[in-house]
Amino acid sequence: MRDAYHEELDSIGDGLVEMARLVGSAVGRATTAMLDADLKLAEAVIEGDRRIDTLQHDLEARAIALLARQQPVATDLRIVVTSLRMSADLERAGDLAEHVAKLARMRFPATAVPRELQATILEMGQLAQRLMAKAGEVIITKDVDLAIQLEHDDDEMDSLHRTLFRHLMDDRWKHGIETAVDVTLLGRYYERFADHAVSVAKRVVYLVTGEHADELQQQAQPQETAAEEG
Amino acid sequence: MRDAYHEELDSIGDGLVEMARLVGSAVGRATTAMLDADLKLAEAVIEGDRRIDTLQHDLEARAIALLARQQPVATDLRIVVTSLRMSADLERAGDLAEHVAKLARMRFPATAVPRELQATILEMGQLAQRLMAKAGEVIITKDVDLAIQLEHDDDEMDSLHRTLFRHLMDDRWKHGIETAVDVTLLGRYYERFADHAVSVAKRVVYLVTGEHADELQQQAQPQETAAEEG
Repeated sequence: MRDAYHEELDSIGDGLVEMARLVGSAVGRATTAMLDADLKLAEAVIEGDRRIDTLQHDLEARAIALLARQQPVATDLRIVVTSLRMSADLERAGDLAEHVAKLARMRFPATAVPRELQATILEMGQLAQRLMAKAGEVIITKDVDLAIQLEHDDDEMDSLHRTLFRHLMDDRWKHGIETAVDVTLLGRYYERFADHAVSVAKRVVYLVTGEHADELQQQAQPQETAAEEG
Repeated sequence: MRDAYHEELDSIGDGLVEMARLVGSAVGRATTAMLDADLKLAEAVIEGDRRIDTLQHDLEARAIALLARQQPVATDLRIVVTSLRMSADLERAGDLAEHVAKLARMRFPATAVPRELQATILEMGQLAQRLMAKAGEVIITKDVDLAIQLEHDDDEMDSLHRTLFRHLMDDRWKHGIETAVDVTLLGRYYERFADHAVSVAKRVVYLVTGEHADELQQQAQPQETAAEEG
């Protein structure tokens, strides 16, 4: 029975990696849909979120069944509980990609993003996708260094977010309130998406080391200043 | 051992109710801090979020210890897993109350909310607090009707959110971009706060009935139109 157990555990891990892949792809495609005002692509992302939700329900049901049947303890128990949390992070990240796609659909045939912010939004979308790809890799490899790297990448997201705000607050902003509202929400969606990718990676670190990623990072880089408050 | 188990389970339930109480109080006080530009109150809410986080960590640790020691199955297992999720919802709702307080602090001694929107923001804050109070009551009473009522209250939050947007999009908006950004984020914080309160109530419904709250609501009110997309 012990082998069947670990096979099922591996298969839940595979499901998480597949979720990360789908969610990363969703945010990349939603960004393209937004920047190109591509209605079909936006609708495909919105439609695709159902598959992500289904996958999460399936993973959750299997994790709970595993708890009931195998009654794991210690590390094995932590792995199953952590996988429940990771699937919730990934599902929520999928929702945020869907929000981007819905905004693209709402503004079609226009785009919510003014020309001078398109490069920044593209960078945010690509970074979000890259963060999620790395989170998937961290699930597979359990590479603690890579997980810590994700937090630095997230600093880059914060910096892009500040760039958005600088444009918004600039006196020369000429795109009106509706676009300001759209850009504010878009920035928030990407930022939260990145948070969930980082959260997935942190959970892996905690599984592997029993320490929270923040503590490890402080040990590695005692000089670093505290991250800016959200 | 069985009795000690149920005592511990009850005590986790008490912890969730206490979290809901703290989080509800936090959103009410953050709203007051925002509307009155009360820096001390804002800082108290920000500081108080630590206690909510600590409570969550404590509840999680106890739920996992319970899984390891008692290895519950069937309904008991579902209760413990659901309590893990509810604590995550409550912790996140606490973060959102903290975001409101941080915005109040950032704009002090001014307030982020223009005079003609103060009543709407007050209503959103009060509704958020009420939703969380009801969520706590649902945890205690396991009252499915009350849980379904929460979803209707959430429709009211959506309606208040639309009121905010109507003001923002009105050509007569004269508060500039920064305030538009602030109000957009505030609206989002309250909306997400309400989502988490509803989520807590839905999880209780699922525990009690084995059915998702949406299905029950459809059975009760087949004529109702689909909720607007976020």
